[in-house]
Amino acid sequence: MSISDEDQAAIAALAHRLADAARAEILPRFRQASLITDNKLAQGFDPVTEADRAAERAMRALIEAERPMDGILGEEYGAREGSSGLTWVLDPIDGTRGFISGTPTWGVLIALSDEAGPRFGIIDQPYIGERFEGGFGRARTTGPLGERSLQTRRGARLGDATLFTTFPEIGTPQDRSAFERVSARAKLTRYGMDCYAYALLAAGQIDLVIEAGLNPYDIQAPIAVIEAAGGVVTTWQGGPAHGGGQIIAAATKALHDEALDLLAPI
Amino acid sequence: MSISDEDQAAIAALAHRLADAARAEILPRFRQASLITDNKLAQGFDPVTEADRAAERAMRALIEAERPMDGILGEEYGAREGSSGLTWVLDPIDGTRGFISGTPTWGVLIALSDEAGPRFGIIDQPYIGERFEGGFGRARTTGPLGERSLQTRRGARLGDATLFTTFPEIGTPQDRSAFERVSARAKLTRYGMDCYAYALLAAGQIDLVIEAGLNPYDIQAPIAVIEAAGGVVTTWQGGPAHGGGQIIAAATKALHDEALDLLAPI
Repeated sequence: MSISDEDQAAIAALAHRLADAARAEILPRFRQASLITDNKLAQGFDPVTEADRAAERAMRALIEAERPMDGILGEEYGAREGSSGLTWVLDPIDGTRGFISGTPTWGVLIALSDEAGPRFGIIDQPYIGERFEGGFGRARTTGPLGERSLQTRRGARLGDATLFTTFPEIGTPQDRSAFERVSARAKLTRYGMDCYAYALLAAGQIDLVIEAGLNPYDIQAPIAVIEAAGGVVTTWQGGPAHGGGQIIAAATKALHDEALDLLAPI
Repeated sequence: MSISDEDQAAIAALAHRLADAARAEILPRFRQASLITDNKLAQGFDPVTEADRAAERAMRALIEAERPMDGILGEEYGAREGSSGLTWVLDPIDGTRGFISGTPTWGVLIALSDEAGPRFGIIDQPYIGERFEGGFGRARTTGPLGERSLQTRRGARLGDATLFTTFPEIGTPQDRSAFERVSARAKLTRYGMDCYAYALLAAGQIDLVIEAGLNPYDIQAPIAVIEAAGGVVTTWQGGPAHGGGQIIAAATKALHDEALDLLAPI
């Protein structure tokens, strides 16, 4: 659907305020002493779940106050229908296992989507203080090195490529075999980055991210950021990625094609 | 050997200046656009090697000016004998594959060791702006959440433990089998953190790091930091770890014992 310039500016500004609100809820709960051990001792108190829920509540409250006609789909509190044709898709902490391990690989994912998919997205890493945004003509990051534009790396073929996924086992044994066909041809395969891998792809640092079993709220913000930076995100079958499932994100169309051939069932 | 309080203070202060000098050389070379592609095009120019060497040169110059009697063992420029009985052990960029992928998992490793092993160490992550130090009665970190003391997590048994290693393949097939015996019993296994995993262990966020094929300069700074925080670092055979090789770092002696039993050849 068509979104006016004025609305685009308002949406982007609100998205940044959502990310700020999520940061404020989550960061004080990150790297608590003895997070896991405390969980067990303190009768079900779970800092990551608390942080996740508090951040989503804060974001939903802002959306409901400012754009009550928009829908909301959140990881923690589910779907709320809207009437504007636009939906905010929220994952307050993507990468909870990274979060409980203290790694700065989890992120706050915020997307604004219409029926065709995400139009604008933010990947925020509060601990590093780093934010990646894409859509409405923008593709940029702010962080420890200042503000930079985002652009995926050009020209790499699979034999030059750096490939990321979070867990080596990926998903089903078939998923793993498909992934390993790509990995065997890539120059370097690395693990464990959660949603931060998508940010690195948009920033031109790596070339491919391949995952399976994703939910819509796991991938909609990365789609917006990566597409704005010049990359390609689809399912392993080459279809739209915003529904989740088996996902491949690539720096270029050529690299995407090369990997998709290897992911296809043999 | 005995080191006077005055000397300890001077050594710790110099170690921080070395880390500052390394940061200044490395950070401007991190996340350059199209790092790998440029490498190939620009006739051998390699930002990670440049950063590695420039940082080690800067650190060696400071040591030679201030403590010329100390020895130096550096990853890039090798060993220089000293006469004080003390040696600075330097790895300017531990985790070069992380560095070229843009992940904030590499680090600057600085240790001051005597014949028995490391006495003081620093793990520095310049991009996050985070530093971990241990030895001479200190165990602390400074970073985005301010200054905190370091203490390994207490009370976890293997079934509660979070285990890290950088690559799933670890080393030889036998190394991998041994690792997988531990991993199968752990609560969570994660990958890809380079030397940052040792910092997370010292900070009480994770419980075990198991690796193989390490060099002395990869592990001496982590030993100092982890031991100062209450953890245990040895070879898989339970011997001194400062020579490198197959290394296990554990939050507690009990957890170390439990994992060592599983790492032993079967």
